[in-house]
Amino acid sequence: MHASQDQQLFEDFYADIIGSPLSHWLQTAPAQLTRWQKEQRHGELDSWLRVVSKLPELSSTSNDLKHSVTFGSEAEASNSDRARMTGLLKQLMPWRKGPFQLYGMDIDTEWRSDWKWERLLPHISSLTDRNVLDVGCGSGYHMWRMLGEGAARVIGVDPTQLFLVQFLAIKHFAPKTNPIHLLPLGIQELPELKAFDTVFSMGVLYHRRSPIDHLFQLKSQLRPGGELVLETLVIDGDKDQVLVPGERYAQMPNVWFVPSSEALEHWLKRCGMVNIRTVDINVTTVDEQRSTDWMDRLSLNNYLDRNDQSKTVEGHPAPKRSIIIANRPE
Amino acid sequence: MHASQDQQLFEDFYADIIGSPLSHWLQTAPAQLTRWQKEQRHGELDSWLRVVSKLPELSSTSNDLKHSVTFGSEAEASNSDRARMTGLLKQLMPWRKGPFQLYGMDIDTEWRSDWKWERLLPHISSLTDRNVLDVGCGSGYHMWRMLGEGAARVIGVDPTQLFLVQFLAIKHFAPKTNPIHLLPLGIQELPELKAFDTVFSMGVLYHRRSPIDHLFQLKSQLRPGGELVLETLVIDGDKDQVLVPGERYAQMPNVWFVPSSEALEHWLKRCGMVNIRTVDINVTTVDEQRSTDWMDRLSLNNYLDRNDQSKTVEGHPAPKRSIIIANRPE
Amino acid sequence: MHASQDQQLFEDFYADIIGSPLSHWLQTAPAQLTRWQKEQRHGELDSWLRVVSKLPELSSTSNDLKHSVTFGSEAEASNSDRARMTGLLKQLMPWRKGPFQLYGMDIDTEWRSDWKWERLLPHISSLTDRNVLDVGCGSGYHMWRMLGEGAARVIGVDPTQLFLVQFLAIKHFAPKTNPIHLLPLGIQELPELKAFDTVFSMGVLYHRRSPIDHLFQLKSQLRPGGELVLETLVIDGDKDQVLVPGERYAQMPNVWFVPSSEALEHWLKRCGMVNIRTVDINVTTVDEQRSTDWMDRLSLNNYLDRNDQSKTVEGHPAPKRSIIIANRPE
Amino acid sequence: MHASQDQQLFEDFYADIIGSPLSHWLQTAPAQLTRWQKEQRHGELDSWLRVVSKLPELSSTSNDLKHSVTFGSEAEASNSDRARMTGLLKQLMPWRKGPFQLYGMDIDTEWRSDWKWERLLPHISSLTDRNVLDVGCGSGYHMWRMLGEGAARVIGVDPTQLFLVQFLAIKHFAPKTNPIHLLPLGIQELPELKAFDTVFSMGVLYHRRSPIDHLFQLKSQLRPGGELVLETLVIDGDKDQVLVPGERYAQMPNVWFVPSSEALEHWLKRCGMVNIRTVDINVTTVDEQRSTDWMDRLSLNNYLDRNDQSKTVEGHPAPKRSIIIANRPE
Repeated sequence: MHASQDQQLFEDFYADIIGSPLSHWLQTAPAQLTRWQKEQRHGELDSWLRVVSKLPELSSTSNDLKHSVTFGSEAEASNSDRARMTGLLKQLMPWRKGPFQLYGMDIDTEWRSDWKWERLLPHISSLTDRNVLDVGCGSGYHMWRMLGEGAARVIGVDPTQLFLVQFLAIKHFAPKTNPIHLLPLGIQELPELKAFDTVFSMGVLYHRRSPIDHLFQLKSQLRPGGELVLETLVIDGDKDQVLVPGERYAQMPNVWFVPSSEALEHWLKRCGMVNIRTVDINVTTVDEQRSTDWMDRLSLNNYLDRNDQSKTVEGHPAPKRSIIIANRPE
Repeated sequence: MHASQDQQLFEDFYADIIGSPLSHWLQTAPAQLTRWQKEQRHGELDSWLRVVSKLPELSSTSNDLKHSVTFGSEAEASNSDRARMTGLLKQLMPWRKGPFQLYGMDIDTEWRSDWKWERLLPHISSLTDRNVLDVGCGSGYHMWRMLGEGAARVIGVDPTQLFLVQFLAIKHFAPKTNPIHLLPLGIQELPELKAFDTVFSMGVLYHRRSPIDHLFQLKSQLRPGGELVLETLVIDGDKDQVLVPGERYAQMPNVWFVPSSEALEHWLKRCGMVNIRTVDINVTTVDEQRSTDWMDRLSLNNYLDRNDQSKTVEGHPAPKRSIIIANRPE
Repeated sequence: MHASQDQQLFEDFYADIIGSPLSHWLQTAPAQLTRWQKEQRHGELDSWLRVVSKLPELSSTSNDLKHSVTFGSEAEASNSDRARMTGLLKQLMPWRKGPFQLYGMDIDTEWRSDWKWERLLPHISSLTDRNVLDVGCGSGYHMWRMLGEGAARVIGVDPTQLFLVQFLAIKHFAPKTNPIHLLPLGIQELPELKAFDTVFSMGVLYHRRSPIDHLFQLKSQLRPGGELVLETLVIDGDKDQVLVPGERYAQMPNVWFVPSSEALEHWLKRCGMVNIRTVDINVTTVDEQRSTDWMDRLSLNNYLDRNDQSKTVEGHPAPKRSIIIANRPE
Repeated sequence: MHASQDQQLFEDFYADIIGSPLSHWLQTAPAQLTRWQKEQRHGELDSWLRVVSKLPELSSTSNDLKHSVTFGSEAEASNSDRARMTGLLKQLMPWRKGPFQLYGMDIDTEWRSDWKWERLLPHISSLTDRNVLDVGCGSGYHMWRMLGEGAARVIGVDPTQLFLVQFLAIKHFAPKTNPIHLLPLGIQELPELKAFDTVFSMGVLYHRRSPIDHLFQLKSQLRPGGELVLETLVIDGDKDQVLVPGERYAQMPNVWFVPSSEALEHWLKRCGMVNIRTVDINVTTVDEQRSTDWMDRLSLNNYLDRNDQSKTVEGHPAPKRSIIIANRPE
């Protein structure tokens, strides 16, 4: 139990929650994250972190989190800086959620995550001064947008360690005082904090063996009256329609429950949520999710039936996603 | 941590598993059951146990577990014995699963559990010399029938403490050496024993928030090649049909997932089971489940729509139950 | 696990150790202190804390921690303030370690702890910029003097809850930013921090059933090369002389081992400490420890033999205390 | 958590305590011993156990545990059996406590442990029908003698794994039903069983950093009124005389406290024991402890000062041992 360089990964997070409505998280987070550092670290984590440590130190006056995730302008860095950044950041591929603009350099990610953000933003409560949790946050694209909307602090959780490193790489270019933190934990590892004003769970529920437990876990992170923003795969149909695909769905493993949006609303009600409404249903297009220079593996168009884009290669309905908003009762 | 009378409740169980394929259960069961005795005991447990301790000591030469659950004949007890037994055992009402015959006395239970047994027996592997687990065993009716089929030992788990006492009351009249034990635990509290030859889960799955986790838990109790006998509520429909009722289903609270039998077969496949087949689908009748002298509360006929017995009072399809058999891969 | 007013008791401590060599203490301290608040709190703690909350808010320009523990001058408070402070602080009697001067008011404690401080100060390493632990700190008198010597931060541990409240009462009059914290824990509850520059254990060892384990615990709090300042009761004699008194020693219960100073030096060597030297041996006088207006119970002179002040009422040698300094090897 | 051959090491022990006053030990022992088997096993344990498995299967009508530890007579085994036994058992050297006679073969151990037994036997309560614990039992010589005195069951604890194997080797020749078990645990790992009629601790206390805690641990194994038999190194002197040797005492490492017998009696009193009396004090001779064919390393005569056998090579008093008997209050 010695202080190590590693530990400093999360010290800003601890400092940031002391004195906040999340301060009771100190009862479990430091012990848990220290255990994570000792026992669960990915074999390549250290080499990835070294990549981040080599990123150039630049300073910027022109950031934007309101309309994009942009740190620095082209004029604020040299071409050789950009070449170096590109070389380093490409070592952290694949980049899935984005895009990010860094000193005139574009990280063109698999997803146009900004499109999803535009679809949901009009429907959610203002994030100004709110404590926000992003469950399954990936590399953190939406976390920055939440900060751009004025959140008091944004915490993301995602157990995939490459995402943590990608997040730290982007954070390297952000102002040091930004209250934004990614913890490499799964939602099911969190205590019942009952303290967040807004909780996002986007693209997670269909990966859970127990969607009902997932809904209860999300609820237990919210303060009374807090808002849940839930996005997941859905199928068409009435409230008794639930697809449980086979081993793979659009080539993804570990997809368990894909209910209709109506079924999902009903589940939220059974879990004691109120003020439940579906605000958006959207068929994912091959423009929104596709291979790029920063994600050179197969993507959605490879996973759809060649002859009928309304079906996956397995014959399931093609990916359709619903955004549902609900509140924990006061 | 003192030896107490209580502890003796489970000492026969410990003695019985030593030297058996279940002996590794000793690593957790005694600590867990002692904790249960200290922390979770029902307020009336002691008074219920006192009822059992007052039952008359009788001895019998005529028992039957092959065609019924019968201990002792009418000739082997006096009328006053029977009157005393009736008075005592009625203090343990409601009696749900049965019926039991004790020295000419009939415990006419809510359920004709023997009918279900008759329906499933032709389809399962012979229980002779097998280690058998009955998950959600209730007062243990089927456990006795499993013993009657020659099981090496039968362990039931059910967290409802009245069922434990009812079980002990029946066991009081059985030969002392019968290898049959009820543990007041939920299936999710068990370690992954991977040791039973046959596991029964009847009437449990629809009460679980996470049916998939339930299936994995059942699988993890089986030895490779072991047999699962799963009985649960189902609806009609294809493999995407899953009913999640509202707060109540046929007035039962805590009903979460009622899939079609085809959906359930598919779920078992996703959980890695093999040799999956539905062997019986049966609409529960008001003859099989009804109020009696030993269960004087409301029963099925009160929970069906008066005008349309094919529906529950909530408008859901009336209870239909499927029996599915499957194997853990070798 | 909700944020509560209580929790704020220790939030300054958490904030203060983040980024310091003690930051790894966050892995255990918040969980432990929260458990303490839930399970171990003294029945009167809340009423004692209310006393502290009623103390007047005063501000001072004249504090002294170098020659005394003084906050505020007589001129900076009114007589009615002083009367109120006296009334409140006397509710927290008995006051054992001191004295304290607060706005012209004197807390005349049982002990002249300043005398002990004067005796040891010339012998210890300068505390400037050091992280200091005071084990068995009582109400914290010496902690303030350590701060007065320039310590970077001072942490005291003492499980007696009245001492915590007395400490908070004094701290109420100190500048808010003082890095000084008392944790209501025993030394044996601490993880092996290996991080303090100086560790004090004064008046503790003779209360431990296992003095050797106490020495190892103290050692395990020190960084390599760190300094231990150990003060405890001793008897005359060579290195094989160890008094284990009966039920009471000078009427104190729970006195276990009172070695000779030479024996104690030898024990420290066995525990792997180096640079061991006794710097002071002092017979406690009835001037240094006595009843006062702020400690109206019996004191030393009642515990010595009337006819022979060199003996306790039990016939043991009268209290003699040794100060030994040693280092953890580099 | 699978049943393994290993587990069977302790299954006889579990079976033996069920139904006894020790049955509550099942709450911790199986979990603890399984953990031991997984995590703490000595690198050579498996090869040692293989040695035991190769011992010849013999059967005997002539055993003696009353005057020696003897299994089988010379006539009941062949010379080749004896040669094989000798070859195998010498692979388990060094043999320290004994001697053992097996089918005419003599294991001539470092210690004449029978002499110590003869010295203490007249002073202790009859062991007939008692549950007996032997703390620091070594290879178990005295355990067999306890059984010979009619104990209901004898449990030894000693963390040294070679001793466990030596014990199993001897047990191989004993009747299968003997209620005698060695657990590879330290006394400080045991729960407070409060159940033994007699507890022996011979040759252990001087190895403990905290002799007082050791006495409390021994006390907590006894039923009210139970008897403690304590044997340990002592020095001459009054009740304030306690030797804490340097790194080594008679070349033994880890010797911490060697009190006078009077001091030890006083400590027992402080721990709440009653009826305390020293029944034997004996200077260990080089006849009682010496090198043999079965223990070919250095022994006592090498550890005494050549010129003055009343001193160890370190200059401490030569080993003198005291036997003290005491009772836990009723």
